[in-house]
Amino acid sequence: MSCKKVLASDIAQVYRDEVKKIISSKGIRPKLVGFLANNDPAAVKYAKWTGKSCQEIGVEFELRECPREELESRIMEANEDKNVHGMMIYYPVYGDRQDQYLQNIVDYHKDVEGLCHMYVSNMYHNIRYINKDENKKSIIPCTPLGIVKVLEYIKVYNPVLPYGNRLYGRVIGIINRSEVVGRPLAALLANDGAKIYSIDINNIEIFTRGAGLKLHMHKVQETSLQLEEVIPQCDVVITGVPSKSYKLSTDMLRDGVVAINFSAFKNFEDNVTEKASIYVPAVGQVTIAMLERNLLRLYEYFHENLE
Amino acid sequence: MSCKKVLASDIAQVYRDEVKKIISSKGIRPKLVGFLANNDPAAVKYAKWTGKSCQEIGVEFELRECPREELESRIMEANEDKNVHGMMIYYPVYGDRQDQYLQNIVDYHKDVEGLCHMYVSNMYHNIRYINKDENKKSIIPCTPLGIVKVLEYIKVYNPVLPYGNRLYGRVIGIINRSEVVGRPLAALLANDGAKIYSIDINNIEIFTRGAGLKLHMHKVQETSLQLEEVIPQCDVVITGVPSKSYKLSTDMLRDGVVAINFSAFKNFEDNVTEKASIYVPAVGQVTIAMLERNLLRLYEYFHENLE
Repeated sequence: MSCKKVLASDIAQVYRDEVKKIISSKGIRPKLVGFLANNDPAAVKYAKWTGKSCQEIGVEFELRECPREELESRIMEANEDKNVHGMMIYYPVYGDRQDQYLQNIVDYHKDVEGLCHMYVSNMYHNIRYINKDENKKSIIPCTPLGIVKVLEYIKVYNPVLPYGNRLYGRVIGIINRSEVVGRPLAALLANDGAKIYSIDINNIEIFTRGAGLKLHMHKVQETSLQLEEVIPQCDVVITGVPSKSYKLSTDMLRDGVVAINFSAFKNFEDNVTEKASIYVPAVGQVTIAMLERNLLRLYEYFHENLE
Repeated sequence: MSCKKVLASDIAQVYRDEVKKIISSKGIRPKLVGFLANNDPAAVKYAKWTGKSCQEIGVEFELRECPREELESRIMEANEDKNVHGMMIYYPVYGDRQDQYLQNIVDYHKDVEGLCHMYVSNMYHNIRYINKDENKKSIIPCTPLGIVKVLEYIKVYNPVLPYGNRLYGRVIGIINRSEVVGRPLAALLANDGAKIYSIDINNIEIFTRGAGLKLHMHKVQETSLQLEEVIPQCDVVITGVPSKSYKLSTDMLRDGVVAINFSAFKNFEDNVTEKASIYVPAVGQVTIAMLERNLLRLYEYFHENLE
């Protein structure tokens, strides 16, 4: 078999070990609070899994449940609570723009999900640090960051190139343009130098920093090219279509492609392994590892010297 | 500037340091003999440079000059001489098929250039070892091997993939199909999983191991595609055109391409750095490092336990 299958658990382990080691050597105990204000059983399951994962590496996790009408005040309370070092919210809460409002209620000192406006805006504008000394990195949303770490692990990021340009020359297709994963991911990867075909049900957009990476941050252009024209050009194809029936045809893929799926459903056909050089069937565990990594960062940046 | 220029001297140093360290730790002194049977001043210069480089890392180098009519018997004499651990010949001697005959006179135990039939045939057939225990690697010609090492150094070889398939997914153009460099290089890189466009003045050939790397060794097919159609598809373009006036148009190159030149002349235009992510303007010093590395291998494989 010429295809190498790479499991999210193996990648996650690298980062989890790193976080665990730092926590243990410093003798600290960062605390993460999760807010559950919907009755989504999937969210409850995810919360339990997060708690278990946190416990294993020395993070204290507390799940706080409340009616959604109380959520805002509970977040503000946690913003003030010195014993809380990071927080996350199980979305969707309202499932509309009010959720975006809630994201901005979280103080950036405790925003492990990287969803408040400052972090999101830094990400789109390719601003990597939050301070002038450039020793505190901006927080990046966990799933897009997790996919970046997958791409680093499998060496799609070329470490020979300077930091910030390590995807220069790569052509990457992303099938999903949600505000939570697909669009931030397209921006992140384009900011690191790749040419991105960002594909959704309505159209295809190209995200790049321009020929020769002349731009500091990516620009976006719509293209009239069709899916069957762009996919064969892609070195890497990343899928995130939330549908059981959606399957990307293996016939379209370039031989030796890198195939990554972040949907809960398998978006590639089973025979993708006949065409792909590397196949990553899921990324969920890397996402949780990034949550823990972001928590540790925020703890080190803002809390460590206050205790 | 978004292009990273990588110098052959930096890459060569890695391998030279490695060879030097082994030689010094083992307290050995491998001896390389160079045969000069033409009056080519370029060859004399190259021989002096080889001598200097060998001396720096602890290899004894002896240049033996003779009329070309005596060369065969001088090689056979060195084949028998226990104090000679490797030899090389400054070609061209006759400049025709007689040179190929001379390559086969060199005993494979001392063939640092990897040009005798056994090594050449192993290379084309993707046979990597010369013994059943698979602990003695077949010797690969120095310039193609040097270019492989350049590609490893700049991470075009993906170390995440299994050994033997690390170029799977890469599309590489090679402009030169000489028997000494271009054709063996195309075979080597295709055997490692790449799709190669092998380009010379007459035609373009595709070297691959087939879709999904189903074949153990590469196959070759002629294509009617033209240069301006294939070059924009290439992740990597390697040039070796022995002409001062030849310049590959930068316009044809894919943005973020890896550009490598092994010709003595600059085959890329000066503005290649506006398109390339990585540019390697020359490889000569890596070639010499490979000569020294091959010598050490042959010494370890065949001579070490005899002294």
